[in-house]
Amino acid sequence: MPLRGNAVVGQSGGPTAVINASLAGVVEEALEHAEIQGVYGGVHGVLGMLKEDFVDLGKQEPSVIRGLRGTPSAALGSCRHKVSPEDCARLVEVFRKYNIRYFFYIGGNDSADTSNKVSKAARDAGYELAVVAVPKTIDNDLAVTDHSPGYGSVARWVAIAVRDAGLDTEAIGVVDNVKVIEVMGRNAGWITAATALARDHEDAAPHLIYLPERPFNPDKFLADVKAVYDRLGHCVVTVCEGLKDEAGRYVTASSRSIDTDKFGHKQLGGVGEFLCDLVATNLKLKARCDKPGTIQRVSAALASPVDVEEAYEVGRHAVRCATQGITDKMVVITRKPGPRYEVELGTCDLAVVANEEKLVPDEFINEAGNDVTAAFVQYASPLMGGPLQPYTRLERIPVKA
Amino acid sequence: MPLRGNAVVGQSGGPTAVINASLAGVVEEALEHAEIQGVYGGVHGVLGMLKEDFVDLGKQEPSVIRGLRGTPSAALGSCRHKVSPEDCARLVEVFRKYNIRYFFYIGGNDSADTSNKVSKAARDAGYELAVVAVPKTIDNDLAVTDHSPGYGSVARWVAIAVRDAGLDTEAIGVVDNVKVIEVMGRNAGWITAATALARDHEDAAPHLIYLPERPFNPDKFLADVKAVYDRLGHCVVTVCEGLKDEAGRYVTASSRSIDTDKFGHKQLGGVGEFLCDLVATNLKLKARCDKPGTIQRVSAALASPVDVEEAYEVGRHAVRCATQGITDKMVVITRKPGPRYEVELGTCDLAVVANEEKLVPDEFINEAGNDVTAAFVQYASPLMGGPLQPYTRLERIPVKA
Repeated sequence: MPLRGNAVVGQSGGPTAVINASLAGVVEEALEHAEIQGVYGGVHGVLGMLKEDFVDLGKQEPSVIRGLRGTPSAALGSCRHKVSPEDCARLVEVFRKYNIRYFFYIGGNDSADTSNKVSKAARDAGYELAVVAVPKTIDNDLAVTDHSPGYGSVARWVAIAVRDAGLDTEAIGVVDNVKVIEVMGRNAGWITAATALARDHEDAAPHLIYLPERPFNPDKFLADVKAVYDRLGHCVVTVCEGLKDEAGRYVTASSRSIDTDKFGHKQLGGVGEFLCDLVATNLKLKARCDKPGTIQRVSAALASPVDVEEAYEVGRHAVRCATQGITDKMVVITRKPGPRYEVELGTCDLAVVANEEKLVPDEFINEAGNDVTAAFVQYASPLMGGPLQPYTRLERIPVKA
Repeated sequence: MPLRGNAVVGQSGGPTAVINASLAGVVEEALEHAEIQGVYGGVHGVLGMLKEDFVDLGKQEPSVIRGLRGTPSAALGSCRHKVSPEDCARLVEVFRKYNIRYFFYIGGNDSADTSNKVSKAARDAGYELAVVAVPKTIDNDLAVTDHSPGYGSVARWVAIAVRDAGLDTEAIGVVDNVKVIEVMGRNAGWITAATALARDHEDAAPHLIYLPERPFNPDKFLADVKAVYDRLGHCVVTVCEGLKDEAGRYVTASSRSIDTDKFGHKQLGGVGEFLCDLVATNLKLKARCDKPGTIQRVSAALASPVDVEEAYEVGRHAVRCATQGITDKMVVITRKPGPRYEVELGTCDLAVVANEEKLVPDEFINEAGNDVTAAFVQYASPLMGGPLQPYTRLERIPVKA
């Protein structure tokens, strides 16, 4: 017999273009299940739940919930909060008070860890609670799932931005010779890899791609840039903010103590400027850095339609699973074999996905460690909705005097 | 009697989302005038013309020229080249060799200066040449014209980006308390001012806007940020890369000698990180910086439809003027009075616009020097095609236990 009671949903971790689509999926599906009475949202994830700060999602106008599918960032507010045993006990107490029997948490690795701990605490307290996590991360670093909602949209954003910024450098490379675009990603280079989707011809940007999966060697980097510049007269580099040196240390990380979060992660950033300095000093070329930062992860206007749809569906699936008695799982996306892009939804154990990071595998990185492979492009292209519409290029028809 | 001969067109200065729309306007209009025989493009502006490096634009497929209206950056290649007297003499020689009688140059202040010098050189050499400049600059700092093609699109880009990044900070401001978005602009804060167009409700980002038209005072800045943070729990700041201190010096400018161009302009950048350091050190708040850089100026996907259309029309108008015997002018846009946004095209003397910079006027900046006025919003909103489509916001419907 399914659990009867209320459901709570929270959003956690970095906002994305589609985390609200998952929220809409959870709410709309929950409203279709008689055993779920109220649908509540935790304001700023577990932080709000700890304080009994809820929004009634079941009582919103249907158009508001529908509108979430086109609204970026996290409408409930998000958080990065490492739950203590006391927090977990308190959450169970709150759930009991509100008769919350369903806990849906939309987030990444840390959020799966949180879900796992909350579920254990409920079990220890003898409180029946269905816990299903909804995958979300621009970083695409969740284990088991083929890819994570949020990734396809940031992939599309960086592909569009790098193509445009690449045309910019192609046009003005006679002056601004080298451009470095710094892309998000802590240990996994998935987003940086996606900049390869910008290319619509052989010499198109990005010309060099550096992922944290390969140790950074300044001499090799400078030789790479020089070779491209000598050939084309300009060079566009994309680099992951989490770039690491041969010793496995971040090339650049904030030294401000305030910039270390509760999970011990340091705020990164500045690797783009660092590479520009290397180029200017050693190659005597003019280099400039674009660092779109959080802008890249929350664009509704440039979101991938495939990603929006999948984000919505994983939200719905989480509710369907929970009402079927499934708990302690995260929804995962499996890609069906065959030439056409098709997926099916399933689940995996929370414990597997919690705190694990899926890095870009070897077969997606070229031998020189400065680009991705065709296999990666094949993997990632459908996630952003297929190749970008090509731009016009002038034909080099010569003129005679 | 109109001049008979060939026409040359060049693109100069920083690429934009719509400089190719102006190119399409020049080419399509030129093809309608019998007195203009060949339509040539200078590759990388005057640099290519000096080397007789031309592309035959009149012989392109019509679909290619039409496609330029949706293709960002500068399809002919651009340059930043300060012409010497020898360059000007050489250009006249090349024009004579190719029977070029029409010179159309799409660019900003420096390009108007170039056009002016080329025209004088032709006159001095007794060579009949019609010279009409086509306005283009994201900076919106050209004199006389109500606004410059390129500005409406970058305004739309930053409005969308700041709205999205603002929602991001609203959601995760419990962790990342302050966001600083660094926007392009050397001495004129027009683009930074346009970030105000992001706002769709009273407490929406950006909460503070700093333009180079007002000297930057760190103490006042910190007090401003603290006040917003105390009220909302987060704060989004937009700042112009060309921010200046009380002595009129750039707050941050590159010290790399390679970063000074031939016009003596230093490469700017880093003011966003500088403000983040101020906030982290003095207010003990976590601050992060987004610096979209060149990405902001060349987005076709987010271009303003009004801007694309106007850019195309100023290109056509330049050709119409030149074939009517007008020379030594730049096309300007005049806004008609009345509540509805309507413009008409005219011209002004090249000499007036060359090397002049139109700054954001006092009536567009608030008294505290940390925001724009309603008059600015009224001025700028139509240029990006009107207000952004609103996003969904959840209603704060409370839940009772």
